Amino acid sequence: MKLLRYGPIGQEKPGMIDGQGGIRDLSAHVPDIAGDALSSDGLAKLAGIDPDSLPQIDPATRIGACVGGIGKVICIGLNYSDHAAESGMEVPPEPVIFSKATSAVCGPNDNIEIPRSSKATDWEVELAIVIGTHAKYVSEEDALDYVAGYAIMNDVSERDFQQKRSGQWTKGKSCDTFGPLGPWLVTKDEITDPQDLAMKLSVNGHSYQDGSTNTMVYKVPFLISYLSQFMSLHPGDVISTGTPPGVGQGQKPPVFLRPGDVVELSVDGLGQQRQSVVAG
Amino acid sequence: MKLLRYGPIGQEKPGMIDGQGGIRDLSAHVPDIAGDALSSDGLAKLAGIDPDSLPQIDPATRIGACVGGIGKVICIGLNYSDHAAESGMEVPPEPVIFSKATSAVCGPNDNIEIPRSSKATDWEVELAIVIGTHAKYVSEEDALDYVAGYAIMNDVSERDFQQKRSGQWTKGKSCDTFGPLGPWLVTKDEITDPQDLAMKLSVNGHSYQDGSTNTMVYKVPFLISYLSQFMSLHPGDVISTGTPPGVGQGQKPPVFLRPGDVVELSVDGLGQQRQSVVAG
Repeated sequence: MKLLRYGPIGQEKPGMIDGQGGIRDLSAHVPDIAGDALSSDGLAKLAGIDPDSLPQIDPATRIGACVGGIGKVICIGLNYSDHAAESGMEVPPEPVIFSKATSAVCGPNDNIEIPRSSKATDWEVELAIVIGTHAKYVSEEDALDYVAGYAIMNDVSERDFQQKRSGQWTKGKSCDTFGPLGPWLVTKDEITDPQDLAMKLSVNGHSYQDGSTNTMVYKVPFLISYLSQFMSLHPGDVISTGTPPGVGQGQKPPVFLRPGDVVELSVDGLGQQRQSVVAG
Repeated sequence: MKLLRYGPIGQEKPGMIDGQGGIRDLSAHVPDIAGDALSSDGLAKLAGIDPDSLPQIDPATRIGACVGGIGKVICIGLNYSDHAAESGMEVPPEPVIFSKATSAVCGPNDNIEIPRSSKATDWEVELAIVIGTHAKYVSEEDALDYVAGYAIMNDVSERDFQQKRSGQWTKGKSCDTFGPLGPWLVTKDEITDPQDLAMKLSVNGHSYQDGSTNTMVYKVPFLISYLSQFMSLHPGDVISTGTPPGVGQGQKPPVFLRPGDVVELSVDGLGQQRQSVVAG
C-alpha cells in the first residue's frame, strides 16, 4: 500500500495510490497519514478499502511529506562505509545519531531553498523508516513489528553549517526545506528486503549517487532497537538511515547546489523525488 | 500572565494562574497553550479574561509541560562561561546548538527516569524561551517581538550518552522525561529583564547550581536572531538557553542522579520544579 498526503502546504489531505498510479482521497476514512493510522490496526483498516471506491484527485496536485504530525526526525550519520571514507571519517563503533528539525520536512517535489548565508548546500539520498507503534527498549528481533513503512528522504545538508560553525550537525541539517520526504509511505509488506534497495541521485541529469541499502553498516532492525534504548519512538517518528557515497562534498573538487539546479532521486520501490533549487 | 497545562499525561487542558496562585480552566477559551494561542493576538485575548470568572481546578492536579504541540526544542550548549570551564571546554566563537527530542518533554514535577544503561544522568537548570510568532531571518533588534514568554527547563543529560557514545549530543539529551518544562509559560510582559534572573538547582536539599542569566554568553535576542538565520522558528518552539555552573559532571568527584533522589530547581519569576528520580 502506498499512502501519501496531497494539497497545499499545511493543508495536506490523506490519500492512497490506486492500481493505475493515480491519487485517491482517503479523507472520509482517516484524518491524516499520522498517529494511530500508522499502527498495524490502522493500516489494516486502510488496506481493506478498495482504492477504486475512493474519489480521484487531479494528478497534478502538489504532494506533501508522506507523513503528518512527525514528532522527530532522527538521522544516522556515516552509516555507509564508502560515504564515511569520502567524508574523511571512520565508521563509528556504534551509530552516530543526530536530528533534523521537523520544520525542515517538506514535500518530495518542493523547492530546496538555499539559506541566505550558505555556500555548501549538499544532497543525500536516504532510506527513511516510518515508525508505526510506540517502541521503547525493543529487541532487534522484534524491531520490524514497530515499523509502518518506508519512504525516500533527501537529507539536505549545509556542510559549512554542519562542520565549521561550532559543532553539532543539527545546525546544518535543519534549514527549511532540508527534508523532502516521500512521495509515498510504502507499507512494509511491499518491501521484501529493506537491505536490498537500489538508491540513485542525480543533479541536472548527472549521476552522483548510485548505491544500495545493502552496504548500510547498521541495518534497519538494529537501528530501531538501538534508538529505542535511548528514547521512545512514537508513531510518525522518522529515522533516516544514512547515505551512500556520492555527496557533493565528496567530489574533487566539491560540488554544491546552486539556484536553478534540479535534484532527482529514487529508491527502489519507494518512488522518486524531484526538487528545484532556489535562493532562500 | 502565567499559563499552564494540567491533567493526565497526554490529556492536558489549558489553564491560567489566578491572583491567589490557583489554577483556572481555560478550556472554554482556547484549545491548548499552543500554536495561534501564543501569538500576540492570542495572548492579548487571554489577557482580557478575568481569571476569577474561570472554573477553579484542584491545586493537587498534575501539571504538564506548559506548552503543547512543541515542534522542536533547540538547546544552546556551553552558553555560560563558567559552565564551559567546568566542562573542560572553551566558550565557542558562535552558539553551539543541539536538539532535544520533543518526546523528552514532560511536566515540571514528573519523575525523571534514569535510562536502563545509564550511569551518568545529570541536571541543568535553564531559562527556556517559548516562540510565539513565526521567525525567519529576524534581526537581533526585533527578536523579542517573536517571543511569547519564558519557562524553566531542566535540560536533563546523560553524559556518557552525550560525550562517549559516538558523537552528537542529542543522544544524551533526548531520553524520555529529560525535558521537564514549566510549571508556567510566563508571558514576556512579566519578565522585565530576561538577563537578570537568579537560577537555582538542588539535589536532596544540597545546592549545586546558584547562578544568574546575567552571565549568559549569547543572550536571548541574539540567540533568536541567530537561530532564525538557519531555520524557521514556529509558535510553540522552545529554545533552552544553556546552564550556569554546578552540573553533576563538574563536581569533584562527579555526582550523578540515582533513583530516590529529589531535584528542585527555580528561576526568578518562573516558579519552581521538583522531580523525583526513578529507574527507567
